[in-house]
Amino acid sequence: MALPKGEKAAEITDHGGSLGRARRLFPQAPEPWVDLSTGINPHSYPLFELPATALSRLPEPERVCELNEIAAGVYGCPSAFNIVSAPGTQILLPRVASLVAPGRALVLGPTYAEHARAAALAGHAVSEVADIDALADADLAIVVNPNNPDGRVVTRENLLGLARALHSKGGLLVVDEAFMDVGPREQSVAGDVGHGGLVVLKSFGKFFGLAGLRLGFAIAAEPVARRLETELGPWAVAGPALEYGARALGDHAWQNEMRERLRSEMARLDTLLSRFDIPVRGGTPLFRYLEIPHAADLFDLFGEQGILVRNFAWSSTALRIGLPGGEAQWAKLERALQSSARQRVSGQRKTIS
Amino acid sequence: MALPKGEKAAEITDHGGSLGRARRLFPQAPEPWVDLSTGINPHSYPLFELPATALSRLPEPERVCELNEIAAGVYGCPSAFNIVSAPGTQILLPRVASLVAPGRALVLGPTYAEHARAAALAGHAVSEVADIDALADADLAIVVNPNNPDGRVVTRENLLGLARALHSKGGLLVVDEAFMDVGPREQSVAGDVGHGGLVVLKSFGKFFGLAGLRLGFAIAAEPVARRLETELGPWAVAGPALEYGARALGDHAWQNEMRERLRSEMARLDTLLSRFDIPVRGGTPLFRYLEIPHAADLFDLFGEQGILVRNFAWSSTALRIGLPGGEAQWAKLERALQSSARQRVSGQRKTIS
Repeated sequence: MALPKGEKAAEITDHGGSLGRARRLFPQAPEPWVDLSTGINPHSYPLFELPATALSRLPEPERVCELNEIAAGVYGCPSAFNIVSAPGTQILLPRVASLVAPGRALVLGPTYAEHARAAALAGHAVSEVADIDALADADLAIVVNPNNPDGRVVTRENLLGLARALHSKGGLLVVDEAFMDVGPREQSVAGDVGHGGLVVLKSFGKFFGLAGLRLGFAIAAEPVARRLETELGPWAVAGPALEYGARALGDHAWQNEMRERLRSEMARLDTLLSRFDIPVRGGTPLFRYLEIPHAADLFDLFGEQGILVRNFAWSSTALRIGLPGGEAQWAKLERALQSSARQRVSGQRKTIS
Repeated sequence: MALPKGEKAAEITDHGGSLGRARRLFPQAPEPWVDLSTGINPHSYPLFELPATALSRLPEPERVCELNEIAAGVYGCPSAFNIVSAPGTQILLPRVASLVAPGRALVLGPTYAEHARAAALAGHAVSEVADIDALADADLAIVVNPNNPDGRVVTRENLLGLARALHSKGGLLVVDEAFMDVGPREQSVAGDVGHGGLVVLKSFGKFFGLAGLRLGFAIAAEPVARRLETELGPWAVAGPALEYGARALGDHAWQNEMRERLRSEMARLDTLLSRFDIPVRGGTPLFRYLEIPHAADLFDLFGEQGILVRNFAWSSTALRIGLPGGEAQWAKLERALQSSARQRVSGQRKTIS
């Protein structure tokens, strides 16, 4: 089936990660799909049997405190009292954006689209800016660090300067560190929330490859953390998320090994892409960011072969590719790249002839 | 250890269901605890092995649609588009209360305390009223039906009249049907949300005995449902909750058998209590409501023997007792009641002598 170039590409404006959508876009693609459309670690933290009470009983407040203690240690934040655990960071976004009265929200972009949506929901007038210095004019400033999808990193020093400036006029800086587990961790500002004017968001599901559990954290000065906790109410985090969160965040050996593994697989992906003359413009060890003129064609060609990558409504040249989850997926990706290269050569010949 | 009468009773102002709290209150109580402090079904829906993807992948929007379809059928609501699934109803409460501009919130009480808290969070001036007719003065009126803890039932006819009256002046009626699965289901207003002015809340975890999963629903007119969904954002419900929700809500045979079983166990509990001259004032098949002068003593005596029941900050005479989860728990409860009866006889003798 020959699709018109880039036709399918235009339809996707989602966040990646939905095979239902992939199947609707490419109904004739071979199963099983290879989903490279997210930045979720394909090597999940090892599954274990949950106690039945994790499902049957209301989550124990004590267990939440334990989880918050462990998370505070891993994220290097002042104390467990600075942490609020939530059923995913997503649900926190409008609540965090509501911490300042409706005003001017500036998002350092392009980035994860939910921040702008959440700020608008909270009543802010939202704009995207390309430069960190422009954020100083905000009542609410939002930075994803490292950024999704391009991996841009803002230094801790710059972020703390911005937080101070905003705080002094009653504003707030939100730093979404969803991908900070894979570095550069020395730029994390999770340890700096005590001075106020700063909320840091942490995602559990991406690095630990357990996005279905729904677990995330807000890290903030204590009064702000208590306010967010009050909004979520009791039993916000499900039993399975509490149990996996406590075990996986406490498993430093797994985390260190996984960081190494992901860096090595990132290098392998870059090498593979470069073999097909696809330069990597940025990203993190969990996803690579491409800017190529034939992005829409590549998206379609991958899709027809049952490989879902991420494209973007705001760019016809940008693609994001996550890590394959095993040798079969690596092989399928390589075959798709070969087939794309053949098509391009054949296309160029036609143009020349 | 002889505790001063009722001292422990005063400390608990929680919602029940925390054994951590029970152990702090009664550190010398024998393990394992028998937790009768909630209205959660002790006979959980049968556990099954989840696909690994329920934990590892982001929840699929398609699966949410399927769950909402199934829930719409079970709850008798107009269509799946009237349903919003959430990680527990608790997290929905402030969002539902925010559907009307800050004004006067009236809660039919005494009832589940989180409604008043959520309404206050949403900026309302909150009062409790004892009479359904008094709710007509509200901008936001809240009824738990059947009520927790006393089982009071407001008829569907009365609720619909109230919703119409409130809607005509821009107000909203919230009906929390957390315990409606065990009846009287003919009084449910979940089928009546299409006319507007009405939001119905449904809890999954109580009847299905899976409170740790965190799953609940708001049922409302379509535009209101979409607004709530927008506030929650994508992936609000975790993979395990989606899978259990779809299977358990679709299992009508289990539901019908469980309703019979719970009614029979309710009758057994009433008979047991009446043998010890403890009259049951109300409740639902999932919990019984007592008003007895020696409630505080009974709470303490139960606690010392490792049985946690629910007491209330607003009453020195009210207790709520859930269903024991098996013969060992029934026997332990009976022994505690015998021991309480002996103490009362001995206390009366002392008073007489």
